[in-house]
Amino acid sequence: MTTRSSVLSSALSSPAGAAPHVLDRCRELVRPALEEAVARLHPWVGEMAAYSFGWCEVGGAPAAAAGGKGLRQALAVLGAEASGAPVRSGVAAAVAVELVHTFSLLHDDIMDGDPTRRRRPTVWKAYGTGPAVLAGDALFALAVETLAGTPGGQVPAAIRHLSTALNDLVRGQADDLLFETRPWTGPDAVRPDEYRAMAEHKTGALLGCAAALGAVLAGAQPAAITALDRAGRHLGVAFQVIDDILGVWGDPAVTGKPVHADLRRRKKTFPVLAALAAPGTQRLALLLDSPEPLDDTVVRRAAVLIEEAGGRAAALAEAHRHIAAVDACLDSVPLEPAAADGLRALLSFLLRRES
Amino acid sequence: MTTRSSVLSSALSSPAGAAPHVLDRCRELVRPALEEAVARLHPWVGEMAAYSFGWCEVGGAPAAAAGGKGLRQALAVLGAEASGAPVRSGVAAAVAVELVHTFSLLHDDIMDGDPTRRRRPTVWKAYGTGPAVLAGDALFALAVETLAGTPGGQVPAAIRHLSTALNDLVRGQADDLLFETRPWTGPDAVRPDEYRAMAEHKTGALLGCAAALGAVLAGAQPAAITALDRAGRHLGVAFQVIDDILGVWGDPAVTGKPVHADLRRRKKTFPVLAALAAPGTQRLALLLDSPEPLDDTVVRRAAVLIEEAGGRAAALAEAHRHIAAVDACLDSVPLEPAAADGLRALLSFLLRRES
Repeated sequence: MTTRSSVLSSALSSPAGAAPHVLDRCRELVRPALEEAVARLHPWVGEMAAYSFGWCEVGGAPAAAAGGKGLRQALAVLGAEASGAPVRSGVAAAVAVELVHTFSLLHDDIMDGDPTRRRRPTVWKAYGTGPAVLAGDALFALAVETLAGTPGGQVPAAIRHLSTALNDLVRGQADDLLFETRPWTGPDAVRPDEYRAMAEHKTGALLGCAAALGAVLAGAQPAAITALDRAGRHLGVAFQVIDDILGVWGDPAVTGKPVHADLRRRKKTFPVLAALAAPGTQRLALLLDSPEPLDDTVVRRAAVLIEEAGGRAAALAEAHRHIAAVDACLDSVPLEPAAADGLRALLSFLLRRES
Repeated sequence: MTTRSSVLSSALSSPAGAAPHVLDRCRELVRPALEEAVARLHPWVGEMAAYSFGWCEVGGAPAAAAGGKGLRQALAVLGAEASGAPVRSGVAAAVAVELVHTFSLLHDDIMDGDPTRRRRPTVWKAYGTGPAVLAGDALFALAVETLAGTPGGQVPAAIRHLSTALNDLVRGQADDLLFETRPWTGPDAVRPDEYRAMAEHKTGALLGCAAALGAVLAGAQPAAITALDRAGRHLGVAFQVIDDILGVWGDPAVTGKPVHADLRRRKKTFPVLAALAAPGTQRLALLLDSPEPLDDTVVRRAAVLIEEAGGRAAALAEAHRHIAAVDACLDSVPLEPAAADGLRALLSFLLRRES
């Protein structure tokens, strides 16, 4: 079994000790503005939003469990600070990006039919599909409204940056849905480079937007904006590939998912695609192509075949490449040192963390 | 049986003869920019968008039937012209508003479970719920991107105007969904003024945005922007109330819906709410409250009771009030005469039209 920290222990050099404090500081900084934005929603829609943020349970009672880590809001605050932007730009960017992220979770859970998230029923499961569609739409509209209401002359550039990320996000989700209908082998099989583009769009675009949006709002140097955006995009691909590794070999006690969950669903993940791109993997292809449900014995066999064909090693190498690219992006431009260190500590912590 | 033209023949004085030509001209003006925007979408999502616009069938073959009338794009072009804005402002506004309108149709059809629209399967029925959610999101993002990419200094104001309309739209849809769960009588019953606010939000906000957005983009006088926006909002309420009248007494051959469709679904429409607000309507309330399915005899009886209680007359008076308010809004500010006449002819034509 593999945990995230064993996946990446060799790839990271930055100390991660300060990261929980960084996450807490950013969450505290952003929370009032995020609450103020959510309070502008229709009360029923606002409850679904608060439930999604982990602030309350169904019906509005205070939440028993903690919400998400707040990765995107921390990236937004630190990215803004690193570019020399004022705190208010980072907070405005954080609010917009958290709202968009939550909108995309609500809608993705409908598309993927996922019944649970963070060990609670998903919004569509708890409130119904129609209401979950509506709540996502409301969060999307609120994100745009929040950003458009920010003072300063950089609002059009910020809206363009956010909408580019949104278009990428939708494009990535569309490709991911279409991958399911494509064959495992032959000329129409999903190639690793198509997978990489999908992961950058689906996961990386919004992380890149988070890291760069405060800098855009503050009118920072284009080179800094590009470097922060690209760092977030590489981080997204790394995250996605690591999730894929954990989806095949991860410890269920740590990932919170059943063992071999992605294999059982025949999901087209990076390790499998990389394995099938190697010669002599006909047995694996036959196994995945069979119309039978994949039982425990078969998925265990498939996991071994993927590892033997180099799928796991290729995925690890891919993740390491993108983590190195994050570092290179952050090194490529002058950034405010304390904030850049905070960013590195945060990324290091997140990549070592188990969920 | 009642058709839209008999509902409103007395309320309209403007000649409607030029309106089909106005609609055609606006559609031709907007189509290239709308196609260019849709071409930026992921191809699969682009096909769902083109299907929604009535440009193609499932699979991409050219459409056999015509699409919608293009009311919102015509309002955008004429509203911009009426305020003295350049054509490009009207076209940019039209593209943004048509994209948002189509996004809202896609998602509303999921929420309402409607299987057909314009005599074809709805997108969720033809492509699946998940893809329809995604296509709606893509159109929403494209609308924001298109508006943000418009040249000129008024982009933040235009984005704020659009996002206010979007928030209203979501709020109206939320109220409409919640109305279903509220009782017919007693302190928690839906009041006619709540219905009016719902209709303004759900239907009026985007029509108001369509009429005003080109003027906003061109930096027109605030008074003209407000007048155009309010005209569109009143038009929306009038439309909704007329639809409600047709939903109870409309001719199925003309409305394309089963006779008494809204009554059968126990939809909380204006004529019913107005009837129940009158004294002595206990029998109607009992009938609507009964747990039994409403058969033909019962809905016919209910329609008679609603009419006897003054529900139909109240709804007609309500529609007339809002149509008069549209006229008053257009008269309240100096507008370019030919375009203002075009707007009046268009509204007159649309209100007389049967679908």
